[in-house]
Amino acid sequence: MTAEARLTSRDPSFAQRGSTEEVEEGRAFAPKFDTDGLITCVATDARSGDVLMVAHMNAEAMQKTIASGEAWYFSRSRQALWRKGETSGHVQRIVEMRIDCDQDAVWIKVEQEGPGACHTGRRSCFYRAVPLGKAGAVTLEFRDGDKLFDPDKVYRDRS
Amino acid sequence: MTAEARLTSRDPSFAQRGSTEEVEEGRAFAPKFDTDGLITCVATDARSGDVLMVAHMNAEAMQKTIASGEAWYFSRSRQALWRKGETSGHVQRIVEMRIDCDQDAVWIKVEQEGPGACHTGRRSCFYRAVPLGKAGAVTLEFRDGDKLFDPDKVYRDRS
Repeated sequence: MTAEARLTSRDPSFAQRGSTEEVEEGRAFAPKFDTDGLITCVATDARSGDVLMVAHMNAEAMQKTIASGEAWYFSRSRQALWRKGETSGHVQRIVEMRIDCDQDAVWIKVEQEGPGACHTGRRSCFYRAVPLGKAGAVTLEFRDGDKLFDPDKVYRDRS
Repeated sequence: MTAEARLTSRDPSFAQRGSTEEVEEGRAFAPKFDTDGLITCVATDARSGDVLMVAHMNAEAMQKTIASGEAWYFSRSRQALWRKGETSGHVQRIVEMRIDCDQDAVWIKVEQEGPGACHTGRRSCFYRAVPLGKAGAVTLEFRDGDKLFDPDKVYRDRS
């Protein structure tokens, strides 16, 4: 676990993890952070249902998300807390947040501000399909792959 | 990395990971398995758009998924390859499979066979909401929490 992630992972707003029955059938919020202090978060577009991105939250990012109703993440590459849209302006307002059965994954339905969620300039990070049923090497197929904004401009202008 | 996961992670059907530009903008399929040999997979319901579950694939699970068009996973708790539905009959037929920008997460849109995907008996694993904007301890709220099948019966009868 990194120092930054560890810092806030024992927050009193999260319940202790109890029995499997308690975790799966109870109302206590006891998210399971992994050995790096992170939990996986899936963000879907509240309108289209499309998956926009998969990212991670540490305890502090989760607290800020719950308190503000906007998505905060923890960047593994930058090892830093990250408010989605802080540089690009492409904020994610949360319509609903859910936790899964064993409480080790989070799903947020969001209203995506701006043209897209992906740092490459697309609406969604999932702009390439993996063809099925074919033998041998796989060649990806672009889907909804048009860039809706210029990431160099969006991220440079606001930094 | 576990022995089972490592066994098949150097498969020739996956490309070597190149530059960021190649990984993000190319057509070569170069999935990034983590240090345990796993990649995160989000399964959504092709009809409703709801997230059904978040699970993991190792290289072999991914190959079998691509070849068969049905979801295979790698169970971290059981440390075993796992064809979704092999016990319950609740198979997931894949309508479309996508990979994200940095190729470390997979999204599958599936036709879910049977009443549900969750081992607790629900349609989705995400049957509890996390209320937003409230201070202090969080109390989960059930959503679509009715059990659609008896997991004890479904899993016992088929084992």
